[in-house]
Amino acid sequence: MNLTPSPFAPAAFPTLPEVRGVRAATGSRGFYARRGVVRDDVFLFVFDEGTSGAGVFTRSLTASADVRWCREALAAGKGRARALVANSGNSNAFTGPKGALKNEATLKALTETLGVRKEECFLAATGVIGEPLSDPNFVGAFVPDLAAKLEAPDWEKAARAFMTTDTYPKGAGLTVQIGAETVNFAGIAKGSGMIAPNMATMLSYVFTDAAVDAELLQEVLAEVTDETFNCITVDGDTSTSDTLMVFATGAAGGAEIATRSDPRFADFAAALKAVCLDLAMQVVKDGEGASKIATIRVEGAVSVSSAKIVAGHIANSPLIKTAMAAGDANWGRIVMAVGKSLEPVDIEALSIWFDDVQVAKDGARAPDYDEAAASGVFAQREFTIRVNLGVGAHAATVWTCDLTHGYVDINGAYRT
Amino acid sequence: MNLTPSPFAPAAFPTLPEVRGVRAATGSRGFYARRGVVRDDVFLFVFDEGTSGAGVFTRSLTASADVRWCREALAAGKGRARALVANSGNSNAFTGPKGALKNEATLKALTETLGVRKEECFLAATGVIGEPLSDPNFVGAFVPDLAAKLEAPDWEKAARAFMTTDTYPKGAGLTVQIGAETVNFAGIAKGSGMIAPNMATMLSYVFTDAAVDAELLQEVLAEVTDETFNCITVDGDTSTSDTLMVFATGAAGGAEIATRSDPRFADFAAALKAVCLDLAMQVVKDGEGASKIATIRVEGAVSVSSAKIVAGHIANSPLIKTAMAAGDANWGRIVMAVGKSLEPVDIEALSIWFDDVQVAKDGARAPDYDEAAASGVFAQREFTIRVNLGVGAHAATVWTCDLTHGYVDINGAYRT
Repeated sequence: MNLTPSPFAPAAFPTLPEVRGVRAATGSRGFYARRGVVRDDVFLFVFDEGTSGAGVFTRSLTASADVRWCREALAAGKGRARALVANSGNSNAFTGPKGALKNEATLKALTETLGVRKEECFLAATGVIGEPLSDPNFVGAFVPDLAAKLEAPDWEKAARAFMTTDTYPKGAGLTVQIGAETVNFAGIAKGSGMIAPNMATMLSYVFTDAAVDAELLQEVLAEVTDETFNCITVDGDTSTSDTLMVFATGAAGGAEIATRSDPRFADFAAALKAVCLDLAMQVVKDGEGASKIATIRVEGAVSVSSAKIVAGHIANSPLIKTAMAAGDANWGRIVMAVGKSLEPVDIEALSIWFDDVQVAKDGARAPDYDEAAASGVFAQREFTIRVNLGVGAHAATVWTCDLTHGYVDINGAYRT
Repeated sequence: MNLTPSPFAPAAFPTLPEVRGVRAATGSRGFYARRGVVRDDVFLFVFDEGTSGAGVFTRSLTASADVRWCREALAAGKGRARALVANSGNSNAFTGPKGALKNEATLKALTETLGVRKEECFLAATGVIGEPLSDPNFVGAFVPDLAAKLEAPDWEKAARAFMTTDTYPKGAGLTVQIGAETVNFAGIAKGSGMIAPNMATMLSYVFTDAAVDAELLQEVLAEVTDETFNCITVDGDTSTSDTLMVFATGAAGGAEIATRSDPRFADFAAALKAVCLDLAMQVVKDGEGASKIATIRVEGAVSVSSAKIVAGHIANSPLIKTAMAAGDANWGRIVMAVGKSLEPVDIEALSIWFDDVQVAKDGARAPDYDEAAASGVFAQREFTIRVNLGVGAHAATVWTCDLTHGYVDINGAYRT
């Protein structure tokens, strides 16, 4: 399958800072090579001793064996992290008992090669669901080779190694002063389908050399996720493998940030959020077949969660997403989506804007409605759909892409 | 917009029986004529005195003015029915105070022309949402002309008059012996988008000359809806105008069926269900752009409602619907949809069949999995996706269509 690059693809992969305490290597286990494509399909990250890890995962009840292992490891290891291995080409979801055997084989290779404890090792896999594993050691077999070539991460190579239907590798990072220390963040993400605002619905990893207590790291990651990866949607589908993890090596120096009252905590949280938001936006902009991106802003709701539910109904409506694709400013479909959300709304006060163009006011079409102006907004590659429900003071924002012929093509041909 | 006929379109409109006590007329108010299309766009049905009416309507909180009136009229008139008017071209949803003015003008025309009470008159409108009404009398003005040409219904003409993106008119009917009486049923439906299993999500009317108490008629209609129109989905979107009504004139004679213990009740309910199921299947088979139809059967659930929720997640998944379109038997996406439903499932027992081909067994790919056989099922125009959740003894069935380029085209161009 040939994928047309997203119109939002950046000209080049961004330059990301080095994160002290992190080494990496990528390699090919031959999955794509067997299909005539030259690319890596597995990566290994290794962290210095003392690294904290935290993760949020898919809520799916058919989660992959890898996701189930990561949850178990975080609990057993109390958030200590030494290694991360991910492969593309097979999601290791719904692979029955063999899924656990693959984990065991990979963990055995990691512990023996690196001399670390298995509950400090994290796994991920992405690709077709339910594809049986011929050899449970299909990842573990490559660990010794990868371990032999560990070096300061080549972020772009790592970001490319776990791509599936992504049309560009995704990376984001920054360097900030936190307290007395200069702290680096680098993150990578993959994902462009099965993306819904109910956990990350992709794989993403953020690495930092900040020193942060593992429990606090878990808390802040969950909060940041709710405002970033949980606010994007491509198709409303939720993957069996969704994973977002953050690893903090502490190699930047300084005392560990262990409480929220630490004055450095807010700076750390803000930097983590900035990296996650950047990665999340890159995922939605690479939404399968996406040609346009909309920011869905719902205001005047009775609560933030109510606003988010309404925004999700708008963001996932196939009728709205096809209208976006066609540049048809069919605002009546926004009314439809608000109504079907079953969330509180005052129909007599409901108002809708496309960017600054008001299309609906107080429960009817705006008196000065201008079709040309509304269509002009929908003709752009990026725009905002803003809705006021008229029943409260709470708001939420969600990002979505359009539904195009490209989505139909990509998802009809994924396994071929 | 030129619509390609659905591959499921019948060769001809079915022959439906005459329903005694019902007269009808159709006409053109010029909506489509102004676009160069010769077709009717309004119909009037008139019922003999003594007719019972019942209705189920969209749950949308932004329901059309017509839906709101029908609810009010059913309550105020205690289920007495004398007239029904529906127009296509404008949904009268989100039209502000003018929406109510259109209703008042139409009801005034009906009461004055027919000499009936307004709470015995029912209204419907379908078309673009939020399109302002230039003249609130845009339907009422045609009532006198329609009333002058009332006759035994031409079911096909009526079914054509309220079509929007439908590619064929939909009708179903039957004649059955109920007790000592020969009873006739005839029904019509329109709808092919904004179809989700949460109320009828289209307009449909069933007419019968059976004599049935209005309160009992409402009860049985709600039950039948749950097993027919609430079990179909095209796109998961819910219209602001969804309406299913049944009118029972009693002209077949015999004492009114007034209780469930009446031995004729079960026969009546079965006939009503047969007509509603036929119409519902015609709606999903005319799903926008549909090229294939799947029956989603979920078994082994903890409850019927749980089974229905899982079936709905499968039926509405864009990833599954695009795989259907492409004939790609990507059964892993069924696992994904089961997982994201968050309904109880035993992952170690989960099994999946495409028609009689078992593709997943006990939480992994079936040992004798045959890709060619699975693909063969998905190559058909109609097939069944059957899932056993392994946690109970309850089941539910939902019908859905595929997601094709046609859907993207139709919904990008709907307003043009």
